[in-house]
Amino acid sequence: MAQKPSIPKGTRDFNAEDVAKRSYIMETIKQQFQVFGFQPIETPSFENSDTLMGKYGEEGDRLIFKILNSGEFLKKISDEDYNSRSERLLTPKISEKALRYDLTVPFARYVVQHQNDIEFPFKRYQIQPVWRADRPQKGRFREFFQCDADVVGSKSLFQEVEFVQLYDAVFSALQLHGVTIKINNRKILSGIAEVIGAQDKLIDFTVALDKLDKIGEENVKEEMRSKDISEDGIEKLQPLFTLKGDFGAQIESLKSILSTSEIGLKGIEELEFINTAISSLELKTANLQLDVTLARGLNYYTGAIFEVSAPEGVKMGSIGGGGRYDDLTGIFGLKNMSGVGISFGLDRIYLVLEELGLFPDTITASTKVLFINFGDQEALYSLQAVTKLRRAQIKAELFPDAAVSGKQMKKQMNYANKRQIPFVVIMGEEELKSEVFSVKNMSSGEQHKLNFDELLALLK
Amino acid sequence: MAQKPSIPKGTRDFNAEDVAKRSYIMETIKQQFQVFGFQPIETPSFENSDTLMGKYGEEGDRLIFKILNSGEFLKKISDEDYNSRSERLLTPKISEKALRYDLTVPFARYVVQHQNDIEFPFKRYQIQPVWRADRPQKGRFREFFQCDADVVGSKSLFQEVEFVQLYDAVFSALQLHGVTIKINNRKILSGIAEVIGAQDKLIDFTVALDKLDKIGEENVKEEMRSKDISEDGIEKLQPLFTLKGDFGAQIESLKSILSTSEIGLKGIEELEFINTAISSLELKTANLQLDVTLARGLNYYTGAIFEVSAPEGVKMGSIGGGGRYDDLTGIFGLKNMSGVGISFGLDRIYLVLEELGLFPDTITASTKVLFINFGDQEALYSLQAVTKLRRAQIKAELFPDAAVSGKQMKKQMNYANKRQIPFVVIMGEEELKSEVFSVKNMSSGEQHKLNFDELLALLK
Repeated sequence: MAQKPSIPKGTRDFNAEDVAKRSYIMETIKQQFQVFGFQPIETPSFENSDTLMGKYGEEGDRLIFKILNSGEFLKKISDEDYNSRSERLLTPKISEKALRYDLTVPFARYVVQHQNDIEFPFKRYQIQPVWRADRPQKGRFREFFQCDADVVGSKSLFQEVEFVQLYDAVFSALQLHGVTIKINNRKILSGIAEVIGAQDKLIDFTVALDKLDKIGEENVKEEMRSKDISEDGIEKLQPLFTLKGDFGAQIESLKSILSTSEIGLKGIEELEFINTAISSLELKTANLQLDVTLARGLNYYTGAIFEVSAPEGVKMGSIGGGGRYDDLTGIFGLKNMSGVGISFGLDRIYLVLEELGLFPDTITASTKVLFINFGDQEALYSLQAVTKLRRAQIKAELFPDAAVSGKQMKKQMNYANKRQIPFVVIMGEEELKSEVFSVKNMSSGEQHKLNFDELLALLK
Repeated sequence: MAQKPSIPKGTRDFNAEDVAKRSYIMETIKQQFQVFGFQPIETPSFENSDTLMGKYGEEGDRLIFKILNSGEFLKKISDEDYNSRSERLLTPKISEKALRYDLTVPFARYVVQHQNDIEFPFKRYQIQPVWRADRPQKGRFREFFQCDADVVGSKSLFQEVEFVQLYDAVFSALQLHGVTIKINNRKILSGIAEVIGAQDKLIDFTVALDKLDKIGEENVKEEMRSKDISEDGIEKLQPLFTLKGDFGAQIESLKSILSTSEIGLKGIEELEFINTAISSLELKTANLQLDVTLARGLNYYTGAIFEVSAPEGVKMGSIGGGGRYDDLTGIFGLKNMSGVGISFGLDRIYLVLEELGLFPDTITASTKVLFINFGDQEALYSLQAVTKLRRAQIKAELFPDAAVSGKQMKKQMNYANKRQIPFVVIMGEEELKSEVFSVKNMSSGEQHKLNFDELLALLK
């Protein structure tokens, strides 16, 4: 194969720096998940197709990566089926497994399958890759990590409160100050739909409302009209477009808008509970904001809806989201299991930290010292020192090939330079005899002769 | 779906304890990889089929999981091809991507693709899952992690020396003392084949020799005869069957057996170099042993061959292996790149640590304290304390639902018990008034009233 190899579109190779930065974000999230009492689980990369298909709508089914059955996968197919030449008909017959599309459905499957071994409420976190056959775009990949925390088995609103705190804790730990945690409630949206007489058009109406920021009031109204929402209804919405003030003030306005809707008032009550608790607990660096236009996940969220946006001035879609789904495990036959959870958008958080220069320098630090190799005898002596340094957990390396010319020695110095190794030890014949190490500081250029203990102290 | 859900055969769910124990092993390996100067990379879970197919032999090709093309995958297939109904013919046309089968081929692809951004010698580690459509058995899975470290771009034997040290460092850090690092050299095997006139039967002869431990001398000879290895040749092998003594003594015997084979003597020289260096550097807890019957990976290894076995008394196959391959990247068009690497068998190491009770208790420790919930007011007060504890990085939880009866309170205590949470805080009306925390030690049953600072001190 002379052709230069490549990887499938929408996938990525990660070099050492990428891995270090991504690990830093994931480890920070993981640490806070644990502090909040969440326990890790991991599920297989592929599930039985039955488990995944039909759970994400028609679009989702199409975007799920299917795995071809092994061996004689055409053998059991009837002539009639084969001759249909229909992808729709044949796919489930030649493919019985599929790559995980998200972490929520596998989690629901896990809970039902292991329900007898789980203590409820079950607080789990999961950080694993998922795969989607989406058209790749800037910032959208076919393989990407999800970082989810969910609780299943309790309807308590204290969980929503804790998830707001969890977002605050993670972004504070990442030094990403000033993120906005937007919150809404499916019940508010249902209440509004009820009040304007558009209960049967909840999705149409919220999809339009959700665009308020982007297309403005008049265009939103136009879209609603095009979806047959009455002028009278749109009139009743007017106060929504001018909802102002802080969380409390907005709640008061909503109370009057939704005064005739039982479900709407229930939504208000829930939001008030969360806001009151958060006010008394105080967030470290994030802001909690009510956003009645927030309408994500309406196919499954039944209560709170969350979305996190980057600090002002950073152009980026949401960097996290989540919500309450009252019947998480019903799809697998376990009823009445309310769940609530949030997710962190690793790739976008990465871009934000990069843009703001928030990755600590220390996380990409690799090898601390390189020993130049002048031949087998010097190298073996050097490796004795390297071994002692490593046993003290200092990242140390010996250049594997001997430098038998000045040019080759220069090559080794260049190698240290390009790898950003801060110290180089020159261990030649002379040093070997006098049992000292000539240590060069690669940024200052200074060179000193040290004994081993001094070297160890310098590198520690 | 009323049927209880399940996962594909050969795959596994991991609960919190599994994840913690597996992470402990992987983190320990990763730490030593870094100390030895290896840098992490990650590659996509699936590669273009071209990249993988034909790299692992016919059996390997069969065991690679193929991903079905998305959308109208039958559209471009000619009627003639379709009517052939041949899996062999149709597979590459309906599937252009495949799940990674190991980490070595993706690494070779990575090196060639990114050769201009890499400083050679390139020391990389990679810890990621791989997938094989193998028949699942005890200890053999269809999805499992590989933990690999390789160096590419140098032929120096100091690398073999360092890999022996790396095995020693990892198993010492895991407190798994007394593992045996077996070493052989492909050149020794080639030399023996040459001496007995069976150059064209290297694989037959080594496969037979490899069984010496299991089936004994006579049966090995019988198998060799059945593969048409001459009586004269088998006669010349006799000293191999009785090879005795330490590394040095065995080397001396080999020198006389292989005195007429140039390649054999080269192999001896390499082994001697490694043994001399390791003797002078001293291993912490592992043993290095010469094993001329060791014959893994002969399709690609060209120099050193490594295999690690668990301490004596533990019945387990190899827990690690590796070797030198002189032309790692040639398959992708980059010639003359010698590589050498080793791998750690995560699942088997797990079983060994479990059997010997070597997992530290601390790694599975989850939440430290649970606050019982007596109602919204008490819960909010509790959550203030929980928040402060969490900000001090103490794993703390509030039970989300209020206990409005003695029975419900007992349920919360049971929850703490089953989750093995060591402390419970009872924060009722009385405690709220007097601003103290009643803390119960769940193992001793003792209960004390503490103020917040005392609570913090207790839990730290």
